[in-house]
Amino acid sequence: MDATYISDEGKATLVILLSYDGAGFSGFAKQKDPSLRTVQGTLEGALATLFSAEVPTVCAGRTDAGVHALGQLVSCEVDAATALKRNVSQLRISLNALTPDDIAVRSVRYAPCGFSARFDALRREYRYRIVTGGAPPLFLRNDAWWHKGALDIGVMQRAADLLVGEHDFKSFCKAASAEGKNTVRCIEVLEVFCETQLGEEHIVVRVVGNAFLHSMVRTLVGTLAQVGEGRKEPAWVADVLAARDRSAAGETAPACGLTFWQVDYPEGLFVEQL
Amino acid sequence: MDATYISDEGKATLVILLSYDGAGFSGFAKQKDPSLRTVQGTLEGALATLFSAEVPTVCAGRTDAGVHALGQLVSCEVDAATALKRNVSQLRISLNALTPDDIAVRSVRYAPCGFSARFDALRREYRYRIVTGGAPPLFLRNDAWWHKGALDIGVMQRAADLLVGEHDFKSFCKAASAEGKNTVRCIEVLEVFCETQLGEEHIVVRVVGNAFLHSMVRTLVGTLAQVGEGRKEPAWVADVLAARDRSAAGETAPACGLTFWQVDYPEGLFVEQL
Repeated sequence: MDATYISDEGKATLVILLSYDGAGFSGFAKQKDPSLRTVQGTLEGALATLFSAEVPTVCAGRTDAGVHALGQLVSCEVDAATALKRNVSQLRISLNALTPDDIAVRSVRYAPCGFSARFDALRREYRYRIVTGGAPPLFLRNDAWWHKGALDIGVMQRAADLLVGEHDFKSFCKAASAEGKNTVRCIEVLEVFCETQLGEEHIVVRVVGNAFLHSMVRTLVGTLAQVGEGRKEPAWVADVLAARDRSAAGETAPACGLTFWQVDYPEGLFVEQL
Repeated sequence: MDATYISDEGKATLVILLSYDGAGFSGFAKQKDPSLRTVQGTLEGALATLFSAEVPTVCAGRTDAGVHALGQLVSCEVDAATALKRNVSQLRISLNALTPDDIAVRSVRYAPCGFSARFDALRREYRYRIVTGGAPPLFLRNDAWWHKGALDIGVMQRAADLLVGEHDFKSFCKAASAEGKNTVRCIEVLEVFCETQLGEEHIVVRVVGNAFLHSMVRTLVGTLAQVGEGRKEPAWVADVLAARDRSAAGETAPACGLTFWQVDYPEGLFVEQL
């Protein structure tokens, strides 16, 4: 066995790739109020059953209440001897059996000791869906923002282009979370396009960056929507950035439209067998 | 006003294009047991409120319990004077307000007097989704059949090709519905392909034909799945056709994977204004 994957204390680091439908959860993070259903609380409950011990978890990107995930990554330390009684496919089957059907475990693998799903992430991608027009979405009704008015994606893209790169995104951060913190982030990709999924047409705002501030993606979308509605010119978003004040930006778009899409790590870090 | 769109009795024929999520319905057709929630019962309830009268409806394709629709078309006769108090956009808004959110009314238009959503349909299309592999589907969990074993879509397509054209599909019809009926139908398109929707990969079986027998699409899919699993050769489906016996075909695939996709009518039949 490779020493870097099992610690001196006999611990192995599991990485769990999972999807969830955010509609039924009060966000990813466990809450003090045990009556609130959370993804972390539900997953840690399944891990506790599997490992007969408390298993604290760390995720790549905390999601707020109602926000979905396609490729969320969670890391945790477990007793290696217990984990190795099953192969990773069996661990995945057990975790799916122990979690409700609005959580789907895609894969289970091992990372080197000390790995953190949060701190070792290189790049995160979010996608936000918007259905426009007079007819409500049906298959996407829990996965998109129904914005009845038309949106001009051409001007939204021109505004989006002004936000790409390294900037202080304080105007796009939930005010209470920004105080005294470094609010500089780097957006690598910010694109606005049309797509048809399950027969329904919608607009996607796709954003890739190193890390994101609290409510940043939903505030970007709410701000771009004001441009798409024609209420603001694309150049206005540069003023929003410069203001470094949350009240300068548009409204926070609803949670249901947002999906934490995927997260990248250095290649070759995860293995299926120890 | 055009006489062909309003009858001597002052009736106009509405055509309602709608989508629904079949999971919460005991099928399209109204049931004698009023405690069963049906699409037709729900829609007729909304129409009765809107027109202060009973409004019987006819649909393009009856769907069984759990089966979805993207582009179902429903026709009904209503009092023209009452209908014309609103434009078709207002009628759509009212119907959406009066129906629950697992029904979405896409559009409301008018058809010539005597039009029937069922008998005037030229062509119907269904799509069936299958997710394979060890990880359960998440966003598609109510819209796809989770078939854990792998399926070879190449051999499925070879089998599908043998079913295209006009044939007696008695082997693919629910036995109780086939007795003494004409079971000859014409399949124009039957294709099997891979697709990614909402980030999840799946197999689609797409079928287009003039009309379909009871459970025909789900039996076609269950039969093709046996070929995809490698349990049968593609040529076996010709024997299934020839048998004219439901027990010769594969199992009926689960309802949740099936969506009534769209229906075609002669062009120019529907109008937005009278």
